[in-house]
Amino acid sequence: MAQNLPSRAENYSEWYNALVRLADLADHSAVRGCMIIKPYGYAIWEKMQRILDDMFKDTGHVNAYFPLFIPKSFLSKEAEHVEGFAKECAIVTHHRLMNDPNGKGVVVDPEAKLEEELIVRPTSETIIWHTYKDWIQSYRDLPLLINQWANVVRWEMRTRLFLRTAEFLWQEGHTAHATAQEAIAETEKMLEVYATFAEKYMAMPVIRGIKTPNERFAGAVETYCIEALMQDGKALQAGTSHFLGQNFAKAFDVKFLNAQNQEEYVWATSWGVSTRLMGALIMSHSDDNGLVLPPLLAPIQVVIVPVYKKNEELNALSDYIRPLVESLKKVNISVRYDDDDTKRPGWKFTEWELKGVPIRLTIGSRDVANNEIEVYRRDTCQKWMVPADNIVAYVEKLLVEIQNNIYQTAKERLDKFSFYVDSYKEFQEILETTGGFIYAHWDGSPATEEAIKEETKATIRCIPLNSPEEEGKCIYSGNPSRKRVIFARAY
Amino acid sequence: MAQNLPSRAENYSEWYNALVRLADLADHSAVRGCMIIKPYGYAIWEKMQRILDDMFKDTGHVNAYFPLFIPKSFLSKEAEHVEGFAKECAIVTHHRLMNDPNGKGVVVDPEAKLEEELIVRPTSETIIWHTYKDWIQSYRDLPLLINQWANVVRWEMRTRLFLRTAEFLWQEGHTAHATAQEAIAETEKMLEVYATFAEKYMAMPVIRGIKTPNERFAGAVETYCIEALMQDGKALQAGTSHFLGQNFAKAFDVKFLNAQNQEEYVWATSWGVSTRLMGALIMSHSDDNGLVLPPLLAPIQVVIVPVYKKNEELNALSDYIRPLVESLKKVNISVRYDDDDTKRPGWKFTEWELKGVPIRLTIGSRDVANNEIEVYRRDTCQKWMVPADNIVAYVEKLLVEIQNNIYQTAKERLDKFSFYVDSYKEFQEILETTGGFIYAHWDGSPATEEAIKEETKATIRCIPLNSPEEEGKCIYSGNPSRKRVIFARAY
Repeated sequence: MAQNLPSRAENYSEWYNALVRLADLADHSAVRGCMIIKPYGYAIWEKMQRILDDMFKDTGHVNAYFPLFIPKSFLSKEAEHVEGFAKECAIVTHHRLMNDPNGKGVVVDPEAKLEEELIVRPTSETIIWHTYKDWIQSYRDLPLLINQWANVVRWEMRTRLFLRTAEFLWQEGHTAHATAQEAIAETEKMLEVYATFAEKYMAMPVIRGIKTPNERFAGAVETYCIEALMQDGKALQAGTSHFLGQNFAKAFDVKFLNAQNQEEYVWATSWGVSTRLMGALIMSHSDDNGLVLPPLLAPIQVVIVPVYKKNEELNALSDYIRPLVESLKKVNISVRYDDDDTKRPGWKFTEWELKGVPIRLTIGSRDVANNEIEVYRRDTCQKWMVPADNIVAYVEKLLVEIQNNIYQTAKERLDKFSFYVDSYKEFQEILETTGGFIYAHWDGSPATEEAIKEETKATIRCIPLNSPEEEGKCIYSGNPSRKRVIFARAY
Repeated sequence: MAQNLPSRAENYSEWYNALVRLADLADHSAVRGCMIIKPYGYAIWEKMQRILDDMFKDTGHVNAYFPLFIPKSFLSKEAEHVEGFAKECAIVTHHRLMNDPNGKGVVVDPEAKLEEELIVRPTSETIIWHTYKDWIQSYRDLPLLINQWANVVRWEMRTRLFLRTAEFLWQEGHTAHATAQEAIAETEKMLEVYATFAEKYMAMPVIRGIKTPNERFAGAVETYCIEALMQDGKALQAGTSHFLGQNFAKAFDVKFLNAQNQEEYVWATSWGVSTRLMGALIMSHSDDNGLVLPPLLAPIQVVIVPVYKKNEELNALSDYIRPLVESLKKVNISVRYDDDDTKRPGWKFTEWELKGVPIRLTIGSRDVANNEIEVYRRDTCQKWMVPADNIVAYVEKLLVEIQNNIYQTAKERLDKFSFYVDSYKEFQEILETTGGFIYAHWDGSPATEEAIKEETKATIRCIPLNSPEEEGKCIYSGNPSRKRVIFARAY
C-alpha cells in the first residue's frame, strides 16, 4: 500500500481525494472550488482531448471559439434554461480596479460598473445560438457541426477535485439541423462516440440511456447519457448528448429557408464531456496501491528501473538500457528511463505504481548477464522474468492485453453489481450494502422518482436504450410499468 | 479583387477588418470587445498551437492548468505588476442570480456577494507563483518548466479582431530556476523558439530584441521580444519572453534549499504568444484578393475545382479527381475537392483565393483528355498547365516553394523598409511616408523616448540583439549613444 494512501475499504472517499493529490494529478487552489490540474494529470487530459478531437473531426465536426462571457439577458431567453442553470454562476459587474484611496492594495473602481452584468459561461447554448442567427439563412447553411474546447464555471457549493469543481474544462458540441430526425440522429451519434471513447480508450464500460424529464438538461427535449459504475457501487454520469428541439432556435429567433423556400426554425443538439472523465477514470480502475491507467491513456506506458549497488554499475546498465528505450520509442511506446541516482529502486517501484504506469521493467547486472528482464504489470500486480530478446514485441502485446484486462475487470464488476429487483425492500437492502445499478420497474411519475430519491438517495440514472419492453409493477407505487429503469446513488 | 474587400492602398485598416470577416476567420460578438473565432480561423490557430506545443515539449516543457480567477489581493503583491497590469480587467463580485422580484428575467442576488472579489486572469504570474510556493522546496524540484494554454481577459477600450481583444487565447510559460543564469538562458531559448516558429512556419521574418525599461512587462527585469513588420510599415510585437528575476518569488515567498543547504529565492521566467499571431499572419502576406497563407499553416493546402458544363460531365470528372485526392492525402497534403454543383467555377476561384488556399488545381474534361492539369499558386497569382503524371510530387515541391517564396517576399519587404537614420528630420519624414523599422541612435533616457513618442507616435520596438556597438548621437537630444535601437509606429 502506498504511503499515506488510505485503502478503499477504509474510506473510499478519502482514498480518492488522497490519490488525486499523491499521484500528482490535481490540487486545490487559492480560489474556492477551482482546481489546479498538475502536469501529470493534464497529460492524461491532453490524451483524452486529442483522441476525442480526432473522433469529432472524423464525424464531420469543426472547432471554433465563442466568448467566455454571456450577457445576463441572454440567460433569460430560454425559460427552462435559466431556471435550471443560470443561478449559481460567476458574475462580472465591474471592469476596473483602482488604488485603494485609504491605503495599500487595490479596490474595485465604483465608476467602472458595467451597464449589463456578464456571466462567466456555465455552458454556451445562449451565446452560440445568438451567433447562429447570423450564420444560418438557408438549408444550404445546414447542418452546422461545431465543437468548442473551453473552460466553464458553475458556482458549486460542495466541490471535489475533477468530479465537481467551480471551474472545469470541457468540450461542448453545438449543432444545427434542418430536421428533427437529423438532429436526433446527431444526438445519438455523439452519444455513441462518447460510449466508444469510454469503452475503448478509458476501458470503462458504460450504459447508454435516456434521462427522465426530472434529470434532463435545462432546455432539452431529450437528454441522452452514458453512465458508469464506480468501485464503491455509485454511478457516475460520464457524458451527455442533448436533443434541444427548436427551443434555442425559438428563443434566439434562428430560422432558415428550406428547399421549398419556406421559413422554419432550426433544430439543435448539444453534447459535452469534461474533466469529470478524469474522476471516472481514476475511480474505475485504481487500487490501494494507487492509480491504474489503461495503456491508451497513460502518459508513461513503460517505466524502466535499473537495479544496482554501485554507481559504476549504473553506467553499464544505462548503456544496455538506452538502446532499449529507443527501440520502444520507435514503435510509439512512451517510455521513461528512471535513472535518478538519488532514489532507491524500492522507492521508485512505489512511486510508479502510485502513478499507474502500466508496465515496469526492472533490469539489474545479473539480468543483463542472463539476458533476462523482469516485467511487472500494474493492473494485476504480477511480476515475472522474460527473455530480453524480442522484449519490444513482448511489451507491445502486453500493453494490449493490459488494456483489455482492465476493461474486462471493470465489465465483470459492472455485471456483478447490476441487479434486477422487483421489491422495494430488496432495492433498499442493495443500496445499503453493495450499491450498484438496480434495474427496477418505475411507474413513470416524477412524484414516485422524487419519493424514492428522498427515501433512499437513489436517482434514476437512465432509461437504458435497447432495453426490452416487459410488463411489471413499479417497485414503489405498484402501478403498472412497461420497462425497467436504472436506479443508483450517484456522484 | 474580391467582392467587398477594399484594397490595401485605399484603406489598409478597412482592408484588414473586412478580410478577417470575409475570409471567415473571426467576427465580433454580442459581448463588447470579445471575438468569435470562426471554424476556418480556428483551424489556423489549431495548427499554430499544435506546432508550438510540440516545440515546447521538445524543449522539456509540460502543460498544466491553473484557475481562471485570481483573488484581488494577489495582484497587489508584486508592486510593479499591479501598477502595470491589473487596472482594466473583468471583476467577479457575485456568485448568484435570482428571479427579478419586479418582473421577468434575472438580477444579481445581493446576498451572494463574494468576500473578496475575483479577477479574471489578465496573465497568471500571481496565481502560479502562489502555487509554486507549495511545489518548490529544494534545488531538486528545479527547474520547473510549465506551460499553460488558456484564455485571458484585459478590458481594452479600443479593440480589433485578433490584434487587440478583451478576451484572447494564448499560451503562457512559467518557469522556475535555481540560478539567474539558467533563467536568462531559458528566456533566450524561448525567444528563439518563437522566432523560429514565426520564420519557419508563419513565413514571417522577425527582429529579436530587448524592450526598453518603459516597454517592459510589469514585474520583469528584462523583456525580450520578436517584432515583425506589417505591409503598412507598422510594427507588430509577435511574442515576448520575460526574465522576471526573483520579483515574483519574493512577492510570493518562494524559496528553495540549494545544494549547499542554503535558502534562496527562486528565479523566474514567463513567455507568451497569443491569437494576436493570427493578426500578424494575415497582415504579413495577404493581398487585395484576400488571404495568403503559408502552406505549413493552411488548413486547406490544395483545392481542386472541376470545370464542366453538364452534370454528367461532373461524374466523369469526379471519377478522375477522387483518386488524385486520395493520393494527395496519402502524402499528408490537406486537400479539398470542391464539387459543389450549386456554384460556378469563377465563384469558387474567388472564394478560395479569398481564403488563401496556396494551390488550386483546375480540371476540365479537355484537360483529362490532354492528360494536363491547370495549376494556380495563390502567392504569385500565376497559373499554368502541367502534365497530370507526377502531379503529387509536383504539388509537394510547389508547396515548399510557396512557403519559401512567401518568406522571401516578406524578408525583402523587411529589408527594403529598414532604414538607418541619423537625423530627426529624416526620421519624421520616413514615419510620415513609408513607415518601417528605423534604426536610430537614442541616448537611453526614458524622457527622450517619451518625447519622440509624443511627437511622432513612434515607439522603440526593441534594442536588437547582436546589433553592433557603434558610436553615435541621439537623433533627438544629440547626446552620445553607443547602439542603434529600432523605432516604428506599432499595432
